[in-house]
Amino acid sequence: MEEKIILLIEDNPDDIDLTLRAFKKNNIVNKIIIARDGEEALEHLFGANAVKPTLVLLDLKLPKIDGLEVLRKIRSNEKTKLYPVVVLTSSTEQSDLKAAYELGSNSYIKKPVNFEVFLEAVHKLGVYWLILNEPPVE
Amino acid sequence: MEEKIILLIEDNPDDIDLTLRAFKKNNIVNKIIIARDGEEALEHLFGANAVKPTLVLLDLKLPKIDGLEVLRKIRSNEKTKLYPVVVLTSSTEQSDLKAAYELGSNSYIKKPVNFEVFLEAVHKLGVYWLILNEPPVE
Repeated sequence: MEEKIILLIEDNPDDIDLTLRAFKKNNIVNKIIIARDGEEALEHLFGANAVKPTLVLLDLKLPKIDGLEVLRKIRSNEKTKLYPVVVLTSSTEQSDLKAAYELGSNSYIKKPVNFEVFLEAVHKLGVYWLILNEPPVE
Repeated sequence: MEEKIILLIEDNPDDIDLTLRAFKKNNIVNKIIIARDGEEALEHLFGANAVKPTLVLLDLKLPKIDGLEVLRKIRSNEKTKLYPVVVLTSSTEQSDLKAAYELGSNSYIKKPVNFEVFLEAVHKLGVYWLILNEPPVE
């Protein structure tokens, strides 16, 4: 089985920690790459050593280049346009929700405030996108 | 809480039955509308008594109008273009997979052949799209 890569685009250290812990619960994930701002994310997606993630987990409020702009760039490049992108954000703005879907986000999840609920949500989304969902092929 | 509607577009009676049983497992679903071919689906989506589903579950091989054409129509209409659409199909064609994502399917799931696995898959996707995912608003 090909190694499944998750690209986690997230600047909040606590949320990174929680997400990594939640993914550890299922044994399918071999590799999680962390980008701590939008610029790093684009480097992982389009740079010399670009990865091909099975899932992109995208926070919206990011330093340097924001999440919606990263999403726009993913969707407008032939190589990356079909990557599954799940927005995982603490934003409560309806405008962010709408913009994310209009830019082609596959799914949008509000970060649960409660620690246990957050763990469970990330676990569920991991199972859904890494096991149940059939990713697009090249 | 607003009633959540699932539009199930499926012509196979066994798969309809299994899907309904799987949804019964979670108590969140109040209403499932079944369209048994592409024409019925378009009537429920665009007709005089059109519904606004929280989730569209879309089979691909459908009588009258096929699933990819239904998806194309959903994505090209201002009112329906952001509806979450999950393709649930027994197709093993890579071309269907690619076409579905290119037309903007949020997710693509191959129908498990095994009865129990099918039930579990529909249960998981129901929980994901009806509880975890934040649907786009008007």
